[in-house]
Amino acid sequence: MKKRYLKSLGMSGLILLGGVLLPALVFPQAEPLYVTDQMLRDADKDLGNWLLYGRDYASSRFSPLAQINPTNVKNLVLKWVFQFGVLDVQQGQPMVNNGVLYVTSSFGRLFALDGRTGKLLWRYDHPLPEDIVTWAPTGATNRGVAFYHDKVYLATLDAHVVALDARTGKVVWETVVDEYKKAINMNLAPLPVNGKIIVGMAWGDFASRGFLVALDAETGKEVWRTSTIPAPGEPGGETWQDPEQKAWRYGGGATWLTGSYDPELNLLYWGVGNPAPAHDGLVRPGDNLYSDSTLALDPDTGKIQFYFQYTPHDVWDYDSNGPTLLTDVQGRKAWLHGDKNGFFYAIDRTNGKCLYAVPVVRITWAKGLDTNCRPIVNPEKLLSRDRVTTDIAPSRAGGVPWYPMAYSPRTGYVYVPTTEISIDLQARSEAPKPGYPYPGAQVIRTSRPGNGALKALDAQTGQVIWVANQRSPIWSGVLATGSDLVFAGTPEGEFRAYHARTGELLWRFQTGSGIHGGPATFLVDGKQSIAVPSGGGGPSRINAARGGTPWLKDAAPGGALFVFGLHEEESVAH
Amino acid sequence: MKKRYLKSLGMSGLILLGGVLLPALVFPQAEPLYVTDQMLRDADKDLGNWLLYGRDYASSRFSPLAQINPTNVKNLVLKWVFQFGVLDVQQGQPMVNNGVLYVTSSFGRLFALDGRTGKLLWRYDHPLPEDIVTWAPTGATNRGVAFYHDKVYLATLDAHVVALDARTGKVVWETVVDEYKKAINMNLAPLPVNGKIIVGMAWGDFASRGFLVALDAETGKEVWRTSTIPAPGEPGGETWQDPEQKAWRYGGGATWLTGSYDPELNLLYWGVGNPAPAHDGLVRPGDNLYSDSTLALDPDTGKIQFYFQYTPHDVWDYDSNGPTLLTDVQGRKAWLHGDKNGFFYAIDRTNGKCLYAVPVVRITWAKGLDTNCRPIVNPEKLLSRDRVTTDIAPSRAGGVPWYPMAYSPRTGYVYVPTTEISIDLQARSEAPKPGYPYPGAQVIRTSRPGNGALKALDAQTGQVIWVANQRSPIWSGVLATGSDLVFAGTPEGEFRAYHARTGELLWRFQTGSGIHGGPATFLVDGKQSIAVPSGGGGPSRINAARGGTPWLKDAAPGGALFVFGLHEEESVAH
Repeated sequence: MKKRYLKSLGMSGLILLGGVLLPALVFPQAEPLYVTDQMLRDADKDLGNWLLYGRDYASSRFSPLAQINPTNVKNLVLKWVFQFGVLDVQQGQPMVNNGVLYVTSSFGRLFALDGRTGKLLWRYDHPLPEDIVTWAPTGATNRGVAFYHDKVYLATLDAHVVALDARTGKVVWETVVDEYKKAINMNLAPLPVNGKIIVGMAWGDFASRGFLVALDAETGKEVWRTSTIPAPGEPGGETWQDPEQKAWRYGGGATWLTGSYDPELNLLYWGVGNPAPAHDGLVRPGDNLYSDSTLALDPDTGKIQFYFQYTPHDVWDYDSNGPTLLTDVQGRKAWLHGDKNGFFYAIDRTNGKCLYAVPVVRITWAKGLDTNCRPIVNPEKLLSRDRVTTDIAPSRAGGVPWYPMAYSPRTGYVYVPTTEISIDLQARSEAPKPGYPYPGAQVIRTSRPGNGALKALDAQTGQVIWVANQRSPIWSGVLATGSDLVFAGTPEGEFRAYHARTGELLWRFQTGSGIHGGPATFLVDGKQSIAVPSGGGGPSRINAARGGTPWLKDAAPGGALFVFGLHEEESVAH
Repeated sequence: MKKRYLKSLGMSGLILLGGVLLPALVFPQAEPLYVTDQMLRDADKDLGNWLLYGRDYASSRFSPLAQINPTNVKNLVLKWVFQFGVLDVQQGQPMVNNGVLYVTSSFGRLFALDGRTGKLLWRYDHPLPEDIVTWAPTGATNRGVAFYHDKVYLATLDAHVVALDARTGKVVWETVVDEYKKAINMNLAPLPVNGKIIVGMAWGDFASRGFLVALDAETGKEVWRTSTIPAPGEPGGETWQDPEQKAWRYGGGATWLTGSYDPELNLLYWGVGNPAPAHDGLVRPGDNLYSDSTLALDPDTGKIQFYFQYTPHDVWDYDSNGPTLLTDVQGRKAWLHGDKNGFFYAIDRTNGKCLYAVPVVRITWAKGLDTNCRPIVNPEKLLSRDRVTTDIAPSRAGGVPWYPMAYSPRTGYVYVPTTEISIDLQARSEAPKPGYPYPGAQVIRTSRPGNGALKALDAQTGQVIWVANQRSPIWSGVLATGSDLVFAGTPEGEFRAYHARTGELLWRFQTGSGIHGGPATFLVDGKQSIAVPSGGGGPSRINAARGGTPWLKDAAPGGALFVFGLHEEESVAH
């Protein structure tokens, strides 16, 4: 810590000096909360903090911390709990800087907490308009913040980005990115890259056209904006082949999960959602770029450099917003991506070429993949407006849902949460109306109720090494540690630790509501802690209502942060 | 356990047989949930269960369990959490029968949980009318259930009593006790006595006339109903001396906390609330019986046998609903009672005579007590409609609030939560309107912000043995154990263990929201567990708003049950 402090002092001493003068009353440590570009680039090696949504720019969700290990994990106990004061599904990623936890709850409440005690240092409740439009089961979610220099950045449900003083929670600037009345929600953790704060939007399903935006981190001024759905005449525009050339205007392609960044290549990788309408493909013949793709972009200009599309002309709602995890595969710089379409991919991140793709769940919609991993669609699983197409697998819940996987460089395995549900669908002709749902479906029902698994795949080949079967799908983020532990939660509320090499269940704790957020590990007073939000309901209930997980029909919402550490026999501090 | 089962089988084998045939799937143990009168009378000696609101008929809140002790309490860790799915102040008392926890949340939701895992066995959500009237900060509270034979009893916000099958949660009967439109709420744990379920009502402050009701435990039929405010001509009616003889009709005297019972004397002891209007005493000259009293009643007929009035002609809102704790004092059968008026009393429970009374907080409203412990009122602290009376101590929050104290027969000490706040008041003339607030006050504001303490008093003399000072008032129930531990919570969310002989703080845990419920201890698989609800806001915020505890102004509501046990190094059960 001390070392980093001196280093960053050299880079911007004046601002740091302000930090040093802070009264010790406000923060548990007198050390500053200033975050430099170098700190973000070195976040993978940072033992104490959790500085980026995916822990590092590669989104690896691997921490080298090893104090908690397979032998002593049975001594993991709850140190404190913070209740958010709202009840919903909680999908936040707790993030940590110098002993201060920044955690967001549903509706975008932001809490700064003393990591040692859970004491509230400050809170920010973003005021929301009463006529906000979102999708009830999960819409009010918020997934976390970004740190950059002396500020914390929050993207809001009404499509604002708010920059707050990391020490006080005071609003420094607030930028309106888009009109909330068009059902443009923002609920992702922003990504800080080279002085810019990059955010995407949710609800491509509300007859909107997806985009990514970069704001100046100091001022909030927009630097660039890139549409994920090209207009006619733009590269990719030819993949929207409706004769009237208007489908692209409502073409979806949302960008609601934080991307990854490769500082060496200076490339940003960002997942794009399904085309709209999700199920009525008749109105949008063609591949519908860049829906269901990962984009590689220049973070300085927003220019799309190349892409890989997982599901051309998707009619099954296989949005590809799930993480792109950067690592080397077969000696090449690659990204790994588990897709809702059921395949797991390794893609060359210098050019977008497929290195391999393997099915990781039961798949009926495709018969296989061609040599560049383009799917060979099963014509029996295409949709019609006239009849129901049955037993489409995976379901809209996704074979690999968006919940972030983790990769351990120690084992070489990637830990992927999977879901096995199949579905019946029938398309419907619908007129797009911005701000209103635009699914293009008249039947959405489950064919086979679903279970799930946590699967460990060899990152080099995609080969499955072990499978930890689950009654319910795993709809939580995954964390891997330097002691060969893997943590993930269940919709039933259990937070669990598995052995990273065998999948053996080593420890579990019932939090009382479903776990759908991301676990974080970090140091408090030199001791390893693990934080995870608890709050279920949303995804469990919607899938239960459709018959996908009937035993979760009463899954209750929640709202609390649970922080664990190794049990110590010590007296209470007075 | 086995022994009790055989014993109760002899008493009512047929019903028990039904219990035995239950599939093992539904309950963690195949043993029945049948509760006999003898079990209730012996609840003080029952190691495994928590069968009555105050643990035993004496309301002692003492458990002989001693596995968790002052040496190993540092190894107390959280075993599981159950989130209620509502956010409010949570004042419930978890109750336990044969490994099943029955806990109520705000709005009277009732959850039956497997004590080992927190798994929900069944739940009951009482449907409430949309036009229910209550007092927002704490009104929606529910304090627990009653067990009798094969049923669990819940009193509801809309003044119903519901009897449910303890095994399935199925409603067996439901009785409407009064009209909810008159703002008659019920939020107490009913008391089961000799085949009757006894309940009281809340909101004597809404221009109502208090009462107690006994229902037949099997059928729900009303057995008796006793008014706490006598009509003209009835005994005590002469203490309502307004010339028009109408004040008694709106005279208050609510009965919103569970009473105690002496099986040998066959007497029921029940606290009565303040007279109404709370502050405008001019409309009700006289002592205003039986407001601010403890009644001793025949549980078979409801007939009042005798009483003790703590604050005759109360104008300061010193309701006396707090527990009457039955024990022997100076060789006599007595009850102990800490009153909102700031005094702590020992009363002969065979005749209502005062044995001793001592001040336990700063008191300005009285100059002292006469020989039968009747207060000598300080005329400077009487109220006027024309001017503000300042620095009245204790405040309306109470010197000894209602939150239940505990008594340890090992130490001979009673553990009393106290509050030090003083207040300014000015009366106002108001017309009573049933169902509407009737405080009779135009100024209610804090003079001195308040702190609190947990105080250990020698039950024989009232002498203070030790004081554990607190930043905030203790507004939680207290638990004493057979290993000389005392547990209580704080409005800041900490659950704490103190040494019963010294008051030393031995252990604490941050639950993330204020603690205002009652801790329970019980056995699960032979191991001592401790359960406490967490959920704050209400009382903290209302006192903060009035200036009493300004640092609690942002106290957030919550809703979760926390269950603790000793840490064990053991593998996870698969």
